[in-house]
Amino acid sequence: MQTLYMQEFQKIVGAENVLTGQEDLFCYSYDATPGYSHLPEAVIIPENVQQVSAILRLANQHEIPVYPRGSGTNLSAGCVPLKGGIVLLMNRFDHIIDVDLENLVVVTEPGVIVADLNNIAAKHGLIYPPDPGTVATATLGGTIAENAGGLRGLKYGVSKHYVMGLEVVLANGDILHTGGRNVKDVSGYDLTKLFTGSEGTLGVITQATLKLVPAPECKKSIMAVFKNLDNAGKTVAGIIAAKITPATLEIMDNATIRTVEDYAHVGLPLDAEAVLLIEVDGMPEVVAKEANEVLRVLKTNHADDIQVAQNDAERDKLWAARRAALPALAKLRPTTYVEDATVPRSKVPEFLREVSRIAKEFNVTIGTFGHAGDGNMHPTIVCDSRDLKEMESVKKAMNEIFLSAIKLGGTLSGEHGIGLGKLPWMEQQHGSKVMDAMKSIKRALDPNLILNPGKLVGEC
Amino acid sequence: MQTLYMQEFQKIVGAENVLTGQEDLFCYSYDATPGYSHLPEAVIIPENVQQVSAILRLANQHEIPVYPRGSGTNLSAGCVPLKGGIVLLMNRFDHIIDVDLENLVVVTEPGVIVADLNNIAAKHGLIYPPDPGTVATATLGGTIAENAGGLRGLKYGVSKHYVMGLEVVLANGDILHTGGRNVKDVSGYDLTKLFTGSEGTLGVITQATLKLVPAPECKKSIMAVFKNLDNAGKTVAGIIAAKITPATLEIMDNATIRTVEDYAHVGLPLDAEAVLLIEVDGMPEVVAKEANEVLRVLKTNHADDIQVAQNDAERDKLWAARRAALPALAKLRPTTYVEDATVPRSKVPEFLREVSRIAKEFNVTIGTFGHAGDGNMHPTIVCDSRDLKEMESVKKAMNEIFLSAIKLGGTLSGEHGIGLGKLPWMEQQHGSKVMDAMKSIKRALDPNLILNPGKLVGEC
Repeated sequence: MQTLYMQEFQKIVGAENVLTGQEDLFCYSYDATPGYSHLPEAVIIPENVQQVSAILRLANQHEIPVYPRGSGTNLSAGCVPLKGGIVLLMNRFDHIIDVDLENLVVVTEPGVIVADLNNIAAKHGLIYPPDPGTVATATLGGTIAENAGGLRGLKYGVSKHYVMGLEVVLANGDILHTGGRNVKDVSGYDLTKLFTGSEGTLGVITQATLKLVPAPECKKSIMAVFKNLDNAGKTVAGIIAAKITPATLEIMDNATIRTVEDYAHVGLPLDAEAVLLIEVDGMPEVVAKEANEVLRVLKTNHADDIQVAQNDAERDKLWAARRAALPALAKLRPTTYVEDATVPRSKVPEFLREVSRIAKEFNVTIGTFGHAGDGNMHPTIVCDSRDLKEMESVKKAMNEIFLSAIKLGGTLSGEHGIGLGKLPWMEQQHGSKVMDAMKSIKRALDPNLILNPGKLVGEC
Repeated sequence: MQTLYMQEFQKIVGAENVLTGQEDLFCYSYDATPGYSHLPEAVIIPENVQQVSAILRLANQHEIPVYPRGSGTNLSAGCVPLKGGIVLLMNRFDHIIDVDLENLVVVTEPGVIVADLNNIAAKHGLIYPPDPGTVATATLGGTIAENAGGLRGLKYGVSKHYVMGLEVVLANGDILHTGGRNVKDVSGYDLTKLFTGSEGTLGVITQATLKLVPAPECKKSIMAVFKNLDNAGKTVAGIIAAKITPATLEIMDNATIRTVEDYAHVGLPLDAEAVLLIEVDGMPEVVAKEANEVLRVLKTNHADDIQVAQNDAERDKLWAARRAALPALAKLRPTTYVEDATVPRSKVPEFLREVSRIAKEFNVTIGTFGHAGDGNMHPTIVCDSRDLKEMESVKKAMNEIFLSAIKLGGTLSGEHGIGLGKLPWMEQQHGSKVMDAMKSIKRALDPNLILNPGKLVGEC
């Protein structure tokens, strides 16, 4: 980048908010996805929408790539500044602007950490349901741009269900306001939903109006162990058929169970093919009724062991096993790929079996856990990225996993986004016509292709 | 249109499915919106996606306008073939393709009537929540293209919350498949949500994958009469503050109350400023608890009369008053404009007062009823379109109503769409930058501007 441009950027945000030291550039060259990194030319830290607009106008004029970034917890290399240019760090946008209890909405800047919003909502007996695993570190802007999900997707949906309006800066510097505080709004194309999940490729989010919902009065957690995977699958189907929508309905496969047991010693049988963790929430009367119904379905489908948490301490104990899944797997080997290939709920057992077969075939270690209720699985491959021969097998296994999800009517990503990581399979999932349509939208809103270039729709 | 093209279209769908008689053209020249009509040159009735693709390819090549249409119940002139060309009648797409109980989705063609889907869902203890007033006649395709709402928006949301995937034909004939049966899916831009509510301006819907949800076990309806509008407003706020989300929370203003009473003699006091109709639904235990809480809020806020339906017959009686609102108003004068200017929930009393003031100022008759829980109001202007002087006043009043909704942070349309009817105010609501963004998306997907041209984004 020419020195001239750098001076212009410094004029916009102040010299202290343009980082160009090697250690700074290195820190923003990667995100939470293994295997991807590239140095940017500068890290720019704006603090208001006018600055973002001025930065983008200048970048657009000189075709400088811009990579918006929050906390960098992305799992599909969405933050990696693949073509150099600017990392646009949004962490100074850290104010909650309005908590509107009458309309149950909050207006917030994108740099606010999800957990901080949760804490404020909790004071009013409300919740913001999207709860990715990175809730304590991820920014709201990042979770909106990636349409993040979490453990409550089955009952509560994902980020897009809670984003009511956005302030977005386009590549040309135009500041748009979409949506608002209206529960019903069909005035024009739903730009709010288009920007949500667009992974920073269409615009930079500078403000969001988010929906809050009443917190459930109580919760009940049940854990069940299955020696037979099919019985776990039938239980999931049986719970849905019984018209129950649990807040959480998680599954861990045998590889994960063995790893978790070895790591946390929570008493899981090593030969179990699946563990389900089910949590119902709502009014006490509802929770009692639904928990009983879940127990009935579990017994009908031959659960081999059932534990019901009678209090918070017991609930924490059951959840400890599920929470241990990722750290336990990650501890096995130096490199961890957490994927999120997702299938329709009814296909979960078939998909888990496919993943086991793939792990054997390519001799790689894969533990799968995830959200059985909504089909959002996390096949987690642990390996050593320095072992190039092993990485060849990992690549092949990953390819088979994604193809198998697509074949089962699934999708490449339930909640982590496409970024760079899943780009190679996009056309296989969507076909060339859908990709053409997506690319034409990208070009319409960002004709010079400066926003997070190379991601989601790839080159276009 | 040249005879040559007509022959080509006949080749695609058969001569019997290309209507050109004057009586046919007249029947498809208008929809349910008063004041708009234009004759098409032909009405074409395809029966499968390949035919739609071939029709659009030909129309695109020769820049012939195409107006997709279901039952024509549109209230914003969205179906009117403003520039002649083709009305593309989708009623032969009337098959439900799959009812998938494990994944709680239905795959359907767009010509299926909403009520027919409801009947099938009911057999399985499920519901499809979007319920526009035209549920017995409107097609699913039309309700998806318009993102239709209904009386249950507060608790259950609107069409876009239930559209999981679409088959759509673009202007160039490309057949796209978007989304699918996955509850969580963040693979690429959310084209499903972009086409939902795009009013036939971006593509023609030929198939939809829709989410179903368990039917509530029971319901309880409560009607309350208020001599003071503010107390009604405080009641709505109080119910939300009490963390209750009723399925229905309807309001009628004084003008509507007087008209309904005159029409249906249901015993409403003529001096009441507002009537609220509240329905909670769910498990019996929840319904009992929430109904009690609603009663408490009503008493706290000085409701002047409260009626609780003890059985289905009494529920029907309470609902009769609300159902009578539109027919009672429509009976007053030859012409009825049902608008749907919508405001944030907290602004409903202020908006109702504004509408009363506007009615007085311009000496027009306006009854307002609607969905107080989600702020979606229906200011209904009754008049005589043959009286040009009166129509001048109606136009002025309508302009003031929309400007007042926008001023209160509201939107031009909660559920009827923009079409032609609300186009004049689009830029005032959104600003020129948002309109530019919407137009650029329109041009990206429909470069020759053949799909429902002149609507939603106007000329572009």
